[in-house]
Amino acid sequence: MPKEYLPKIRRIAINTGGGDAPGLNAVIRAATLAALDRGWEVLGIRRGYMGLLQDEVDGEPGLMDLSDRVRGITHLGGTILGTTARGNLFGLEPRQPDGTWGPTDPSDDIMQRFGELGIDALVAIGGDGSLKIAHRLFLKGLRVVGVPKTIDNDLGATDMTFGFQTAVDVATEAIGRLHSTAEAHQRVMVVQVMGRHTGWIALESGLAGGADVILVPEIPYSVDRIAAKIVERERNRRRFSIIVVAEGARAAGGSPSYVEGTGRYGGIADRLAAEIEAATGKETRTLTLGHIQRGGSPVPYDRNLALRFGAAAVHAIEMGNFGCMVALQGKAVRSVPLGEAVTDIKRVDPMGEVVRTARRLGVSFGD
Amino acid sequence: MPKEYLPKIRRIAINTGGGDAPGLNAVIRAATLAALDRGWEVLGIRRGYMGLLQDEVDGEPGLMDLSDRVRGITHLGGTILGTTARGNLFGLEPRQPDGTWGPTDPSDDIMQRFGELGIDALVAIGGDGSLKIAHRLFLKGLRVVGVPKTIDNDLGATDMTFGFQTAVDVATEAIGRLHSTAEAHQRVMVVQVMGRHTGWIALESGLAGGADVILVPEIPYSVDRIAAKIVERERNRRRFSIIVVAEGARAAGGSPSYVEGTGRYGGIADRLAAEIEAATGKETRTLTLGHIQRGGSPVPYDRNLALRFGAAAVHAIEMGNFGCMVALQGKAVRSVPLGEAVTDIKRVDPMGEVVRTARRLGVSFGD
Amino acid sequence: MPKEYLPKIRRIAINTGGGDAPGLNAVIRAATLAALDRGWEVLGIRRGYMGLLQDEVDGEPGLMDLSDRVRGITHLGGTILGTTARGNLFGLEPRQPDGTWGPTDPSDDIMQRFGELGIDALVAIGGDGSLKIAHRLFLKGLRVVGVPKTIDNDLGATDMTFGFQTAVDVATEAIGRLHSTAEAHQRVMVVQVMGRHTGWIALESGLAGGADVILVPEIPYSVDRIAAKIVERERNRRRFSIIVVAEGARAAGGSPSYVEGTGRYGGIADRLAAEIEAATGKETRTLTLGHIQRGGSPVPYDRNLALRFGAAAVHAIEMGNFGCMVALQGKAVRSVPLGEAVTDIKRVDPMGEVVRTARRLGVSFGD
Amino acid sequence: MPKEYLPKIRRIAINTGGGDAPGLNAVIRAATLAALDRGWEVLGIRRGYMGLLQDEVDGEPGLMDLSDRVRGITHLGGTILGTTARGNLFGLEPRQPDGTWGPTDPSDDIMQRFGELGIDALVAIGGDGSLKIAHRLFLKGLRVVGVPKTIDNDLGATDMTFGFQTAVDVATEAIGRLHSTAEAHQRVMVVQVMGRHTGWIALESGLAGGADVILVPEIPYSVDRIAAKIVERERNRRRFSIIVVAEGARAAGGSPSYVEGTGRYGGIADRLAAEIEAATGKETRTLTLGHIQRGGSPVPYDRNLALRFGAAAVHAIEMGNFGCMVALQGKAVRSVPLGEAVTDIKRVDPMGEVVRTARRLGVSFGD
Repeated sequence: MPKEYLPKIRRIAINTGGGDAPGLNAVIRAATLAALDRGWEVLGIRRGYMGLLQDEVDGEPGLMDLSDRVRGITHLGGTILGTTARGNLFGLEPRQPDGTWGPTDPSDDIMQRFGELGIDALVAIGGDGSLKIAHRLFLKGLRVVGVPKTIDNDLGATDMTFGFQTAVDVATEAIGRLHSTAEAHQRVMVVQVMGRHTGWIALESGLAGGADVILVPEIPYSVDRIAAKIVERERNRRRFSIIVVAEGARAAGGSPSYVEGTGRYGGIADRLAAEIEAATGKETRTLTLGHIQRGGSPVPYDRNLALRFGAAAVHAIEMGNFGCMVALQGKAVRSVPLGEAVTDIKRVDPMGEVVRTARRLGVSFGD
Repeated sequence: MPKEYLPKIRRIAINTGGGDAPGLNAVIRAATLAALDRGWEVLGIRRGYMGLLQDEVDGEPGLMDLSDRVRGITHLGGTILGTTARGNLFGLEPRQPDGTWGPTDPSDDIMQRFGELGIDALVAIGGDGSLKIAHRLFLKGLRVVGVPKTIDNDLGATDMTFGFQTAVDVATEAIGRLHSTAEAHQRVMVVQVMGRHTGWIALESGLAGGADVILVPEIPYSVDRIAAKIVERERNRRRFSIIVVAEGARAAGGSPSYVEGTGRYGGIADRLAAEIEAATGKETRTLTLGHIQRGGSPVPYDRNLALRFGAAAVHAIEMGNFGCMVALQGKAVRSVPLGEAVTDIKRVDPMGEVVRTARRLGVSFGD
Repeated sequence: MPKEYLPKIRRIAINTGGGDAPGLNAVIRAATLAALDRGWEVLGIRRGYMGLLQDEVDGEPGLMDLSDRVRGITHLGGTILGTTARGNLFGLEPRQPDGTWGPTDPSDDIMQRFGELGIDALVAIGGDGSLKIAHRLFLKGLRVVGVPKTIDNDLGATDMTFGFQTAVDVATEAIGRLHSTAEAHQRVMVVQVMGRHTGWIALESGLAGGADVILVPEIPYSVDRIAAKIVERERNRRRFSIIVVAEGARAAGGSPSYVEGTGRYGGIADRLAAEIEAATGKETRTLTLGHIQRGGSPVPYDRNLALRFGAAAVHAIEMGNFGCMVALQGKAVRSVPLGEAVTDIKRVDPMGEVVRTARRLGVSFGD
Repeated sequence: MPKEYLPKIRRIAINTGGGDAPGLNAVIRAATLAALDRGWEVLGIRRGYMGLLQDEVDGEPGLMDLSDRVRGITHLGGTILGTTARGNLFGLEPRQPDGTWGPTDPSDDIMQRFGELGIDALVAIGGDGSLKIAHRLFLKGLRVVGVPKTIDNDLGATDMTFGFQTAVDVATEAIGRLHSTAEAHQRVMVVQVMGRHTGWIALESGLAGGADVILVPEIPYSVDRIAAKIVERERNRRRFSIIVVAEGARAAGGSPSYVEGTGRYGGIADRLAAEIEAATGKETRTLTLGHIQRGGSPVPYDRNLALRFGAAAVHAIEMGNFGCMVALQGKAVRSVPLGEAVTDIKRVDPMGEVVRTARRLGVSFGD
């Protein structure tokens, strides 16, 4: 494109929304440095859009100049911009479950503030809820580029999301530690990992950690089949079993354990353990990994993917590719339209190559 | 001692009892190699004393020649000998809570089998229950040397037990990961660690991990004081707090959460989280670390302590120091009488130097 | 394909060749279990093709039945089959630098032995040398499926090779550790990582680890430009610098440091450190990471890729896709023809997106 | 002591000197918070005593108010105060090898500045050189408390120094990784670890990592004995060997490899590898761990010991225990006189329990 048609950019903003994921700070750093390198100014907005609408958020200025704030943060967990709370405790962003605004839609106020502040474009880093909002703002005229953030790696438009490999790493390490204690005590161990709607973390950590049973939302399980697997192992003198269960897994005919909207993990591990103990007579213990899966330092893979996403978002702004989301496709980072990207969920394919590989290795999916 | 007075040893046995701890295999390896190096034979007894009384345990021979079974196991978690289940599912070792045998005391059978098998001495690796049994067998005439195993590091006779540093390491790593997510989401996180009767793991992992509140069984807490700490941090713009709680911690005037004899963790974290959320209005989440604290590869410190304990136990047998337990005192591994060793519990001193250090750093103990 | 046209398979063999890489055992395990699951027998050949031609290798049988040898090896480094030494100390496989056999080509003997042993197909796991040999055997009529193994991730036919992420992980961890000591002492640290012909490990570990300078074989460097970067940092009060250099990096106009055929790392770090110290007057130290990059437990990503490759190789045999190599393309594992796969090297693109991202973050490539 | 006799303290200073060690920041944090908690002011002196004598050091003020600088630094490697360069590039502190000042002794200037600044006491964190200087200043009238820092753990007055367990951890991890590659390639691997005068890191990492040969300065080795060990293993079909060598190890009759005063590691690993390859014909490779042993995040053990040391130093100041050094003795942190503490080196005892344990496990010390 001839250079004269490219947008004139002087100042951009960055925000982060939704649950945190290892790599957020790497995105912020890369986007900031890539923008500064082009001679732009970079503002960080605190806690989603709150910092835009309030002068002060949590006792700090709502907006921060990022130019000297991103040094040495690639490897840090969390986000230096803070994130929006699930459930919206602060009443400022009344969102619907589908990610749209509620009755007191603040989007006009947001648009006005972007104008007042002379912000030429926004890098919006967030999950499907945050990206849907970003898309709505784009439709209202905001120059926005999205960066996908989902620990669950369940966006169809991108081969991988940052944070996912770190979550798999933490879960695999925990499963590995449970092996020795399960074997010494001849127990069944049920490990609950994240994954409300998709089972990628369970599948990949279960496979890497040597789980005997992996339960994912995409493949309804039966306790009888799980018990049969445990008994079969017993017969082969393998007197312990490791079961990895996604929080959103459900029994065939049953409903998922995770209760939408509560922000609470549903305790499927405990319920399942009781059922397995009843069915097999084996002592069964549980571990719910919870937030350590999404906290802490990102593994190198996630750092680099996040850095590339951040730099690519700024490149998209320079090229005028607004209303897009950056994504990994094969080895390349590309831009895809926001509108379709956030609705295309990538699910574990029960007939797919990874599940078939796991089955060949003796893994039961409880079906 | 003149050599002719030393006991003639030709064959020894090793067993492991109680919950597992990282380092058990290192003890087994060191004791085995140290015995083989003296020209002795070494038998491993499967699952406490079960392998002595039953030809087959879990489909494997009850006794195993250890001479070629200990290669490369120093860094492995669990125990290659299996361990006795808590709660004694198998009815073979009906123990009392105080570690003595129950009504169907099998100790005469055990003594007889040691004689029949020509086992000259036993290295008994275990917790207070197992060591009390070892002491009783010693009083009946068995040449026994004990190796203390308690993940809680709460034996007064030894400055340190193996497995403890690994548990602290796992807990500290988890606390570290929670920091970033707690800060990003401005939450209170309650992390439940092991420690039914003593708070060493909570104290050391809380200190190393930068916890704001540490709750231990030795210092009864009040929810009001915990809430006051959280509010004080809020006032200083620290909008998140990390609370590390030992499973046996209890409120002032209350009773401990852990229910003796059930082998179950009592869920103090969840109860405490609800109380804190009610008292402060802050979103509060929990993590119960459970068995990953005692599973998996021991850190180098634990490996070396375990190796030294194993070799020292065999040295004690050679020297005729029976009825003893090996122990770390300062930099030296020594032998101490079993009888007193197993009853002397080392508790966290509420007035001691470590607690005082933590208080100086701003840590609240909820008192 | 109609089932009756598929090859009849009863027995397959597996071997590993070339330098080791984390994940080899996972491939062996997956291929073995996937074959056993189809009712086939599986033989492991010790040390490349040596175990086929010699009854005994290193005092062990040359061939091993793998059916009960692959339990619990997914997370183990090395290879249970042993590997072929570089430089061919044993005189059995006189290879040329291009991976073909030398004057005493044993390929006819190898073919004959496969026939005698009734081996219907071979899973050959190895680097470009090993895969070229596999291709030659395929051209002689052997039913072979290759599994690519290169720690350097430099095969064009596959988006990723197993072991690479582990190497990046080890290198990034080391670079991270050097940061604090470099900063405290205000030094320049030069870290030499693997990569004789391509700079992927240097690029990805340097990016993730926050290196200031990254030197790769694809981008010739000048010491003056490196010194300029260090001086520029000094001016900005960043009084230390981290330089990551691939062993095969070379000065503009110079020749690579690695001496082909010697199997020795060429010490580029030490030479470079001396040059930098001379040019800047800054105290400069080196670290050569060497073999820890390719030893030890694979990270979960590598385990899963290796497991998928192993299962896919057996699937390819079942489908009759001989003369192929398994490869990751996007999210899918596919088969690609061996002939072209092993010659298509994937190099770091000096104009590519990852290098451009790094430059935007302030990384110098010394050019 | 009656309170009225205790010194009146209003302001203290902290500095760090010598090579860095994981835990320095934890000492600084604990000392600062413990002092602030008593109502004192705390100044950090940049780079040893330089920040006292120069208004600006490296472009930063020579003195920093530490009151709001120590948050969240417990787990960080390095030192926020910077450290004194070995070799004294800056000409400001011309030290002798014995730790005393050289011809241009700046100690009077230092004393005068302490007086001018109203600094009532100094916490001096450093190695034997730094502590000797601290002792000299004490003899001139400075109220000083020392905190020992030696990665080598070779001070007789303290059972343990912080940083040591982290170094052992890093070395053990590396040795573990080399195992699999050494075994796969049937190589001898020589790993060089820190330890110029004492062999504690080599001993403890070698023991924990399963080394076959451990070479320490305290036990002169002979290449013949090392070769004999390798050949013996070969005969037992263990076709690889791991040798851990302290940089200061030396052949019987030879001189140590480390050249005093150069600050350079002497490359004993490479020389030894050549000798072993010549003596055994086995392919032998080396790894020199270097600075990663002393960089990076301290393990929990080191963090807690460092925190306790920092708090104890401030307690000693409060109690008027000047001219002392804090030390771990058994489970307690105590104060010991500086004068004798810095001269009492703790060496590996060739007849001691740990070495004897290692020998029983089959480890050769090359003697």
